[in-house]
Amino acid sequence: MQNLTQDNIMVFFLSLGLLLGVARVLGELAQKIHQPAILGELLAGLILGPTILGSLAPETSAFLFPQEGPNAVALNAFTTLAVTMLMLVAGMEVDLSTIWRQRRIGLKVGTAGMVIPFFLGLVVALIAPRALGSDLDADPLVFSLFFATALSISALPVIAKTLMDLDLYRSDFGMVVISAAILNDLIGWIIFAIILGLIGAESGQSNNILLTITLTLAFAGVMLTLGRSLVHRTLPFLQAYTRWPSGVLSFALVLALLGAAFTEWIGIHAIFGAFIVGVAVGDSSHLRERTRVMIDEFVSFIFAPVFFASIGLHVNFITHFDLVPVLTVLLIACVCKLAGGVLGARWGDMTKRDAWAVGFAMNARGAMEIILGLLALQAGIIRPRLFVALVIMAIVTSIISGPAIRLILRLGKKRTLLDALSSRLFTRELQAFSSHMAIHELTAMACEASGLDTSVVQAAVLEREETLPTGIGNGVALPHARIEGISKPIVAVGISDSGIDFDAPDDKPAYVIFLILTPVDAPDTQLEITAELAKLFRVFGMTEKVLKTKSYTEFLALVKSSTVEANPA
Amino acid sequence: MQNLTQDNIMVFFLSLGLLLGVARVLGELAQKIHQPAILGELLAGLILGPTILGSLAPETSAFLFPQEGPNAVALNAFTTLAVTMLMLVAGMEVDLSTIWRQRRIGLKVGTAGMVIPFFLGLVVALIAPRALGSDLDADPLVFSLFFATALSISALPVIAKTLMDLDLYRSDFGMVVISAAILNDLIGWIIFAIILGLIGAESGQSNNILLTITLTLAFAGVMLTLGRSLVHRTLPFLQAYTRWPSGVLSFALVLALLGAAFTEWIGIHAIFGAFIVGVAVGDSSHLRERTRVMIDEFVSFIFAPVFFASIGLHVNFITHFDLVPVLTVLLIACVCKLAGGVLGARWGDMTKRDAWAVGFAMNARGAMEIILGLLALQAGIIRPRLFVALVIMAIVTSIISGPAIRLILRLGKKRTLLDALSSRLFTRELQAFSSHMAIHELTAMACEASGLDTSVVQAAVLEREETLPTGIGNGVALPHARIEGISKPIVAVGISDSGIDFDAPDDKPAYVIFLILTPVDAPDTQLEITAELAKLFRVFGMTEKVLKTKSYTEFLALVKSSTVEANPA
Repeated sequence: MQNLTQDNIMVFFLSLGLLLGVARVLGELAQKIHQPAILGELLAGLILGPTILGSLAPETSAFLFPQEGPNAVALNAFTTLAVTMLMLVAGMEVDLSTIWRQRRIGLKVGTAGMVIPFFLGLVVALIAPRALGSDLDADPLVFSLFFATALSISALPVIAKTLMDLDLYRSDFGMVVISAAILNDLIGWIIFAIILGLIGAESGQSNNILLTITLTLAFAGVMLTLGRSLVHRTLPFLQAYTRWPSGVLSFALVLALLGAAFTEWIGIHAIFGAFIVGVAVGDSSHLRERTRVMIDEFVSFIFAPVFFASIGLHVNFITHFDLVPVLTVLLIACVCKLAGGVLGARWGDMTKRDAWAVGFAMNARGAMEIILGLLALQAGIIRPRLFVALVIMAIVTSIISGPAIRLILRLGKKRTLLDALSSRLFTRELQAFSSHMAIHELTAMACEASGLDTSVVQAAVLEREETLPTGIGNGVALPHARIEGISKPIVAVGISDSGIDFDAPDDKPAYVIFLILTPVDAPDTQLEITAELAKLFRVFGMTEKVLKTKSYTEFLALVKSSTVEANPA
Repeated sequence: MQNLTQDNIMVFFLSLGLLLGVARVLGELAQKIHQPAILGELLAGLILGPTILGSLAPETSAFLFPQEGPNAVALNAFTTLAVTMLMLVAGMEVDLSTIWRQRRIGLKVGTAGMVIPFFLGLVVALIAPRALGSDLDADPLVFSLFFATALSISALPVIAKTLMDLDLYRSDFGMVVISAAILNDLIGWIIFAIILGLIGAESGQSNNILLTITLTLAFAGVMLTLGRSLVHRTLPFLQAYTRWPSGVLSFALVLALLGAAFTEWIGIHAIFGAFIVGVAVGDSSHLRERTRVMIDEFVSFIFAPVFFASIGLHVNFITHFDLVPVLTVLLIACVCKLAGGVLGARWGDMTKRDAWAVGFAMNARGAMEIILGLLALQAGIIRPRLFVALVIMAIVTSIISGPAIRLILRLGKKRTLLDALSSRLFTRELQAFSSHMAIHELTAMACEASGLDTSVVQAAVLEREETLPTGIGNGVALPHARIEGISKPIVAVGISDSGIDFDAPDDKPAYVIFLILTPVDAPDTQLEITAELAKLFRVFGMTEKVLKTKSYTEFLALVKSSTVEANPA
């Protein structure tokens, strides 16, 4: 086997470490300002690639990310593996039975959401290719077909994630959107395979397009029927007779790798095979949540960030930024996909409000558009200028999707305990030695931070406390009240090493006291937070662990990781 | 970035899928016959590499695993990444504080276990290099130094795994062995770095050996003091303010990648940097068990199998098999390491029995020897003949380690519920409708499978049942007895859809009945199995899930995965 030199290995680890590190940091920061992580991850590539590092320090850039040689090959192989694994996870998110239930409307939305953008895209690309950043030397048919496809596909992973965040994923609305998006993606990728076949035919390769399509459909058909049923029967066997969960994990990965190799062999991209395998594996009710979460954590937070960051290594996003194609692509993309989604949903007898929400959901292009664009760039179908425009369109449509649906469907924001905690509402050393004093101390802190009237709040909390003491046992007390004039819950935390009597059913003093103030018009919020806390502190030894923390950061770290552990799905 | 062609990508996924698939299947089979998984994983490489596939179908072999070109580079990069991640996990298993406690004896065992093999190896290699499969053209000093190092290192991951399996890892005995093994590995890898430096110096590279050693020690020193403390402070911050566990996961991987790049840069191998980073990260008490398990599952069952399988791609193990070096290496390796371990332990005032157990524990060479040998082979220090001998020595010393320690320390085998279950002791449709009938039915089944006297066993179980009914609630009953003449526990399982009254405290009938027969001379076994079952069925909905299973395989799959979920560590 060809050995990498010492320098190759060093650069390989350094480049991988930098890509992952910068992408994860910026991805987390993007989420802090309520944007998708992919935005930060793409930005990491802009910083490390030709756009910024390549302009400021071309030698460092060439050293870290050479365009040729063993390191270029190694990094390319890794990112190809990464995007293929990402498609495996995307496939695993598909729920075939729910889609089958929503097939009627889903088919209508999917058809309209595909056909309208496709023909609009085809027409625009044929009439005004220059406005889209195409050169005159590109084959007009290939280019137009690609542009039409680029407009018509959706981004299943992004849409699924958006719907999950909005708590709509498993609803009928969600499944209509998901089934339509799967239809769009399946057909979109098949058309793209045809386009690649067309190029192959032109360049004299003996790719038989008809054969490619037949094999593609046969592969998808067999995997989704026979393959799916075989997987479903194999999983209990693997769980029973191999190490768990690694046996199932390996099985899924091996299948995905072989599926990827197969689809690459028949002339469409490897990611299609991994996607179909993902659907077949993810559909089995024998696949346990923990296996799913494990693959997802590794792929979404290790492989995906490296892949998205590597996008920026291909193109200089500043020199190839051109306002005309950027705006043209963005405008056409939004208009035609919204039109397709809304008309399709209305055709399926959905309400106007729901139809517009469907439109904005389908409009998100995210990862899929970027992958498609990258493949087209590498195949020479499009120029960097259009690639930049496609990436920007993908990001913008993804970012507006969630807020638009929330606005249209008038959804409230789900508030969790973690959203309500803050270092300004935390005291590690509560001075109080009675429940009343503790309530005084915590309300004072909460009112100072939020500007509420201390005496009003104190009276409300004390009144509630006197009606029924709020010590819930296990060393925890939850004094609370509903307060006028706040729009979101406030949770103040005090820890007392000596313990304070809150008249708990187990007669133990409270060491951890949560003061919970909730808006009057959100009756469920208080119950939700109380339930979350009760669940958290039912875990053996939790109060002792809280008493061992020394700062707000350590306290928050404990609460956060314990919350994830208590809710594995 | 240099793009892989369609063929490259196809071969990359196919080769990776085959390596992982065959390695995992054979690894699982090896474990079924109570051998380490690595044995099966190495065998996978023999099958797919020049040894078997290369001889039978040279063209297929050259197509799947080419020796040169992009695919060779891509696979090499992936396996280098895999072994580096493996060393990260090995490092994370090190527990510095316990080692510090055992430092006196550990230092003595480590010193004797290093010095004796080193000098014996040096002498043999200088006197009789031919018997070791060396050619005359090799530099005698470099070759002898390498051979001495190869004899003196241990295999921390294998030793740790063996001790964990024997329940000795966190004991004083275990920590003496672990601390000595770490010492051996640290010094061994530094000597190996010097050897690589010597080759570099000969071939005219400007590697300053003294600088390499200084930088190596400085890196290890800084990482294990300042670095470790920084990591310890950073983890709560990451858990509090980034997604968990992926934030910590990414942090550990990025650190490992950068550490690997650094050590590769200073002239020693990347795996050393990842190992030290692993020690620094794994030592923090803030690292939660779930993060550790997650990294371990992915690395031990995805990355490691691919790496070990890839070993077999380098060499034809049949044509390069030569009995003289194989036996010579094996004999010298065992004699000198046993001598070193035993003498060191006796010097540290351990008992004779413990000292021999230490000797056999230190004797395991496993993964480390194979990695060292592979690097030496690639650097041209050794020939394939000696490489084959080293691999065989590594495997044999690893296989005998566990059983030898068990024999010497007279340890019993820990029996778990899962070991006792069998398809011959399972009936999905219990006919009985009273507790007595159920006991009759299950004892008849158990006695038929094991050849015990049915009437004796029935009498014993019924007597126990009449003293105190064994319905434990949640739809489960655990009739049991201690039986003369059996050497290991027998658990027979019957499922009744209609339910049978076992006088449970919650007044519910039992749907799942476990008949537990344990040896008279193993008083704890019954308690352990009972406790395990009680814990398993305390999980909400477990009995309902059991009633949904349709076969023994589905039942075992459910019990096994639920057991792992109930015991995350």
